[in-house]
Amino acid sequence: MQNNETMDATQNHTQLFVKMAVDYWQGQNVRVDKLIDTLTDEQMMAETATGRNRGIYLLGHLAAVNDGLHTIMGWGERLHPELDEPFLKNADNTGHTYPTLAELKAYWHTINAELNKHISAMQPEQWFERHMSVSPEDFVKEPHRNKLNVLIGRTIHQSYHLGQLNYLNPRKVD
Amino acid sequence: MQNNETMDATQNHTQLFVKMAVDYWQGQNVRVDKLIDTLTDEQMMAETATGRNRGIYLLGHLAAVNDGLHTIMGWGERLHPELDEPFLKNADNTGHTYPTLAELKAYWHTINAELNKHISAMQPEQWFERHMSVSPEDFVKEPHRNKLNVLIGRTIHQSYHLGQLNYLNPRKVD
Repeated sequence: MQNNETMDATQNHTQLFVKMAVDYWQGQNVRVDKLIDTLTDEQMMAETATGRNRGIYLLGHLAAVNDGLHTIMGWGERLHPELDEPFLKNADNTGHTYPTLAELKAYWHTINAELNKHISAMQPEQWFERHMSVSPEDFVKEPHRNKLNVLIGRTIHQSYHLGQLNYLNPRKVD
Repeated sequence: MQNNETMDATQNHTQLFVKMAVDYWQGQNVRVDKLIDTLTDEQMMAETATGRNRGIYLLGHLAAVNDGLHTIMGWGERLHPELDEPFLKNADNTGHTYPTLAELKAYWHTINAELNKHISAMQPEQWFERHMSVSPEDFVKEPHRNKLNVLIGRTIHQSYHLGQLNYLNPRKVD
């Protein structure tokens, strides 16, 4: 009975921290959704600060990173691998042709909708499996390199750029 | 035996998840450490973007937020409650007297050293206890409002402002 109670408690923990991590992930994405809904095209085409990445670049960058989750999580093919070259491998204003803002926003929403389908289908235990960029051998030694860890890392990364994107908002936001 | 194996797996998850969250937390703090070591006082006194928070303000803000963890985690008294008024309750440039940059950096390091002592002393299970801003009654209904959740949220918050602070760095950083 003691063992079962402990087991219930720890299984409960597994579900809880998956919920915590997924809630933060989805919450950050919703913050980006709201911001890009608010900003005009002119604002999105502006630099977030003098000489720094433009809104359009950061949106493309975040869309490419989110899309990359399909691969690293083992969820199947990416929807927009063509975003890598302009938005991951290269900096802003390096002569690449970008999709229009309307296209990028549509990609952003489609990618996230697809990700959410996979997230909904995950059992808590599956989040603790290795991600696709770590070998089975390394994973034995470093079991923290699991799928949930990737999701948390991507959430933190997204917040980093959200802080910059918010500078496009003329309303005083921190 | 099956039960024990499952129990081991889920206890292992608890430890793993705590490690993941703590690693990200400490990693973000180290990134801030490195940045404020790199920037000159002149750079720290500048706005991160035109009309936006200055470096000194964001450092004070992050120090105050970190210090507040002592209270919300139930780890004892804050070291610098005087930071709340200028850096949490008020915006930048609202007529408050700020500590010097040297003082703020010293506070930042002292606060984090103290936090790390508490973090090191925490057992994995303790991270799943309620934080001090949620009542025991609400915690029963919302068990995700635990201490680990606070730490993850603060990590995401810190990254948000790190993205902005990095704009003080004249080297091209994303």
